[in-house]
Amino acid sequence: MTQKISDKVINRLTLYHCILSDYISDNVEFISSKQIAKLLNIDDSQVRKDINLLNNSGKCRVGYIVKELKASIEKTLGFKKTKNAFIIGAGNLGSALAKYDNFTDYGLNIIALFDIDKNKIGSEVNNKKVFDIECLPELVQKNNIDIAILTVPRKYAQDMANFLVDSNIKYIWNFTPTVLNVPQDVQVWNENLMGNFLQFTYNI
Amino acid sequence: MTQKISDKVINRLTLYHCILSDYISDNVEFISSKQIAKLLNIDDSQVRKDINLLNNSGKCRVGYIVKELKASIEKTLGFKKTKNAFIIGAGNLGSALAKYDNFTDYGLNIIALFDIDKNKIGSEVNNKKVFDIECLPELVQKNNIDIAILTVPRKYAQDMANFLVDSNIKYIWNFTPTVLNVPQDVQVWNENLMGNFLQFTYNI
Repeated sequence: MTQKISDKVINRLTLYHCILSDYISDNVEFISSKQIAKLLNIDDSQVRKDINLLNNSGKCRVGYIVKELKASIEKTLGFKKTKNAFIIGAGNLGSALAKYDNFTDYGLNIIALFDIDKNKIGSEVNNKKVFDIECLPELVQKNNIDIAILTVPRKYAQDMANFLVDSNIKYIWNFTPTVLNVPQDVQVWNENLMGNFLQFTYNI
Repeated sequence: MTQKISDKVINRLTLYHCILSDYISDNVEFISSKQIAKLLNIDDSQVRKDINLLNNSGKCRVGYIVKELKASIEKTLGFKKTKNAFIIGAGNLGSALAKYDNFTDYGLNIIALFDIDKNKIGSEVNNKKVFDIECLPELVQKNNIDIAILTVPRKYAQDMANFLVDSNIKYIWNFTPTVLNVPQDVQVWNENLMGNFLQFTYNI
């Protein structure tokens, strides 16, 4: 790949990918930009423009070849570069994410969960073990983990972030409603649910 | 408000709001654009530009007045226009969202949850009752609900969306990894978790 793809395009390509997966389940072979556009309530010229960014050869008179378009998106967005991650916090949200089997299709491999609750430690969520948070530094090193998905309650978020940084985690996918204070060499991705909600509802 | 604020700005303002809430908890009275910028790893000129969009009078020599800046953001983004919503699916994700008390601060009021599982129906999550999905149409009407938060398993997503549309829901916040097919007068907001993840990891 030679071109930097913008966040908005990556977001749309992922949604096209969802549509293509559904078409494959339904044994449909071809799809048009109009069909994709209608489902997402966007302009079909936008869909064609996005798809032109891919090295996609599967275009024919009746539309795009579903399987080839799906493969092009996967190649361009790097679905196959698997990234291993730990989930920090085995509560409802952490468990929901551990059960989200789609992650694997997109190259995100959840290895294990961590918690402080003795009742949860030793149990399994979707065949992934819940470990004592004290084992984290050792297991980060052993499994060569870069990414932590943070789902602890808000009041523990900053302390836990400090512990993750000390344990050599370099990327934190932050689901807590707190802005974390971390050193420059650690990247935080804020899953800003309320920001998204306000974007949606701003015009209602 | 006279000006349309872009999605990116709304997203950043929500993060500033998180920071301000933490400052208030810590009894800090003033904050500078540099402090906000450092926490989010962005440029402080960007922070000042965003804040200039608000009708914020709380600026002084030592920085912004935390409480006034917070109030300005809330006013501009419409936190006080409370929106009622139902959660569809009382699994891990639905329960996690029902427990997310921050929603109320942002004007999102979760009234109840719905499920098909007889073991869940009648129980409560964070003082919100879980109802039989069959009661939905009646309760939508009775509570004047516009917004449904969809957290059911992928395979039920489209059928459930059809049911929501038939029940007169006008906005679906979609947490399932499926693109929903709905009529033109219904709006779907896709919480595209994998799209976000791929945006984050695209450059790793």
